[in-house]
Amino acid sequence: MSVSVFDKNHASYERSSPIRTAEILCVGTELLLGDIVNTNAAYLSRRLAGLGISVYHQTVIGDHPDRLRAALEDAFSGHGRPKADLVILSGGLGPTYDDLTKETVASFFGRSMQLHEESLTRIRAYFDRMGRVMAPSNEKQAMMPDGAVVFPNDYGTAPALAVGDGTRTAILLPGPPAELEPIFDEQAVPFLRQFTEGVLISRNVHIMGMGESDVEARLHDVMVNSTNPTLAPYCQAGEVRLRVTARAEDADTALAMCDEMIETIQRTDIAPYIYGIDVENMETALVRNLTDRGLTVACAESCTGGMIGERITAVPGASQVFLGGCITYTNDIKIKLLGVDPALIDAHTEVSAEVAAAMADGARRALGSDVAIATTGYAGPGGGTEQNPVGTVYIGVATAKGASAVRVNYSARKSREYIRRAASSQAMKLALTEVLSGTNQK
Amino acid sequence: MSVSVFDKNHASYERSSPIRTAEILCVGTELLLGDIVNTNAAYLSRRLAGLGISVYHQTVIGDHPDRLRAALEDAFSGHGRPKADLVILSGGLGPTYDDLTKETVASFFGRSMQLHEESLTRIRAYFDRMGRVMAPSNEKQAMMPDGAVVFPNDYGTAPALAVGDGTRTAILLPGPPAELEPIFDEQAVPFLRQFTEGVLISRNVHIMGMGESDVEARLHDVMVNSTNPTLAPYCQAGEVRLRVTARAEDADTALAMCDEMIETIQRTDIAPYIYGIDVENMETALVRNLTDRGLTVACAESCTGGMIGERITAVPGASQVFLGGCITYTNDIKIKLLGVDPALIDAHTEVSAEVAAAMADGARRALGSDVAIATTGYAGPGGGTEQNPVGTVYIGVATAKGASAVRVNYSARKSREYIRRAASSQAMKLALTEVLSGTNQK
Repeated sequence: MSVSVFDKNHASYERSSPIRTAEILCVGTELLLGDIVNTNAAYLSRRLAGLGISVYHQTVIGDHPDRLRAALEDAFSGHGRPKADLVILSGGLGPTYDDLTKETVASFFGRSMQLHEESLTRIRAYFDRMGRVMAPSNEKQAMMPDGAVVFPNDYGTAPALAVGDGTRTAILLPGPPAELEPIFDEQAVPFLRQFTEGVLISRNVHIMGMGESDVEARLHDVMVNSTNPTLAPYCQAGEVRLRVTARAEDADTALAMCDEMIETIQRTDIAPYIYGIDVENMETALVRNLTDRGLTVACAESCTGGMIGERITAVPGASQVFLGGCITYTNDIKIKLLGVDPALIDAHTEVSAEVAAAMADGARRALGSDVAIATTGYAGPGGGTEQNPVGTVYIGVATAKGASAVRVNYSARKSREYIRRAASSQAMKLALTEVLSGTNQK
Repeated sequence: MSVSVFDKNHASYERSSPIRTAEILCVGTELLLGDIVNTNAAYLSRRLAGLGISVYHQTVIGDHPDRLRAALEDAFSGHGRPKADLVILSGGLGPTYDDLTKETVASFFGRSMQLHEESLTRIRAYFDRMGRVMAPSNEKQAMMPDGAVVFPNDYGTAPALAVGDGTRTAILLPGPPAELEPIFDEQAVPFLRQFTEGVLISRNVHIMGMGESDVEARLHDVMVNSTNPTLAPYCQAGEVRLRVTARAEDADTALAMCDEMIETIQRTDIAPYIYGIDVENMETALVRNLTDRGLTVACAESCTGGMIGERITAVPGASQVFLGGCITYTNDIKIKLLGVDPALIDAHTEVSAEVAAAMADGARRALGSDVAIATTGYAGPGGGTEQNPVGTVYIGVATAKGASAVRVNYSARKSREYIRRAASSQAMKLALTEVLSGTNQK
């Protein structure tokens, strides 16, 4: 059997049955030692869900041929769970002697290994591009099982591949997410689309300012009675995401089913708390809405220490709307950079609504933005007062109309990271509300 | 059999054999859908390694009694891998009908369920504390298998527990990391110490500015020849972490073995690139060294957009050394807040060594710190010039001696997130080098 490079216009791999179920099998000692978090399993599962492929099992094992063989056998035979039509493996494609995934999968399917010249040329070119000399051990990465479909790797040295028979397909991907993710999206997804039936489409409704239990209470009947689309709430640092998932023969039908469910949600009391649909996160919602209206934003951060700026500037294109900000971690700097009146700090302390509003106002003046937001509070673990315990954050917002502030309280049992993240989201939500209210229209 | 609350001074659970191997079994549909990343598996694996317990297998399955039962059977019988003495389960301890982990594990061990009054009282108290009314369904969370050892949950409603027999122990933990992590550390670790033999201790050598392959080349012989301690390199956004792990009868011996290996590493060319040993990360190393010397730092951020400030202020106690910073995303703001000379920007563009140095100098003056660091560059995906393509970042550093800047290049194929993270680490490394050089001694 020959080895070929994947070409979505020329099928070089045939299956006799569609792919409905998959398992994820991640190979790596560093996962078993807990040295790295398995983001690949989450990434692949999410993508498979999008292809309408159900995942019932994820496994992590070490670089050990017998255990890998047993795990493949269990997955394809459906040992103690539904049988997998597809197994996606990540890791163990490196050049060293303990990288054994490819050889083990080849032997599982009874295939011998052959040198794939085109892959070798690509690996050599990769080293040239990086200005490095290829080690002889890297040649191993160009060896392929008979009948493999190769997915070339533009992001590293290990090519990915698919191999299998009419009912069992294995896809082998390199472990580093920076290689695995683009290879999967650009090549494995079109490869898999040849073998899938129907689609599963999800849309996400993003809610801030209403707790998960309150959201659930308002949607209880809908959640219990609807099986397609399904509705599932997820909590993240002060936010709730409602995931609407529909399965249908084609994408248009699934999308229409999701939209109908979203309209139902928008007819409930939850509506005012929805800040976006299918927005990646709060910062993306804010940047998009500012861009649409030609408005600019700035920030003044005490307890969040730069997180608002960091999150906004993580959105590509943020430079259209974000001017900058001041991280004012001491009272002196609040006075110096933002012009906060020292008397205000003396009268109310730096953790107060008055100072939060003055910080926002100061940032708006200093940076010349349309809207400005500010945070000051106790993120813990130390600090806090009886009146303002750890978890208390004042959030200021300033526009041409003036400045104001709100007080938010997170449980003191939450981590510093949680409190800072939730407070920075809440600050962006306040800015978004100002933007949507239209009073800043230029 | 009675149910008891864990008390490290009174053993209420007996095993006839020590615990040497464990598996992690995470239960949750949201993991299989990829909606959340499985941080619990990494956390638990890391902790188990620290207890000298080997993990050969991690599994994720849904809330499905038959599959859960099969997974337990496989783990304890050693199906296709070494047999587990311990299985740690996370998730499925909630109050709803589809939370079935506890009931399934009880049935696996042939135990019936009984109401544990003390747990019920605690759950009621938790709701009181939160000012909420307990739903009748939460009573289910106080039901325990006969013979269980309960680990009370101060962070949520679901108590954790251990249950099993003389050779097979299961520990059941709630899924949310904010509950799982403290319960495991405070209660499950002392519980497990009753049954472990010897210890496995790891120390981490943190390296910045030398690539993984260069580090490996310098340590190749040591890495190949040493089995105890072992030496393993891990890459993270522009950094290399060398993990030294020793196994011994007691902690002191293991620690001494690690120290000897670290001394070997320090005798190589790698030494100047080591920025810390067992420091959590670059920001912690910087905050500690500034604190020790009574020095302060400030920052001026363009392409990192607040990430330096965010990372420094994520370290508890950062307020002792961090004054604040300016996020200057536009040229106007660089001029206005930092006093950068517009002629400098005209002559060299805002992405240049000259402007980076001027930004650092400006931040040091504006905020009155001992040291200041600045970033300006192209983090992508858009932007960049022929001379300074995406991935180019200039990093400025200013002290009483003056200001200077260095140019760093990351591959344009790296993500915006990677480039920003690596650049902010590199900026902190420059500040740390200044601090360690002692020229800022007060």
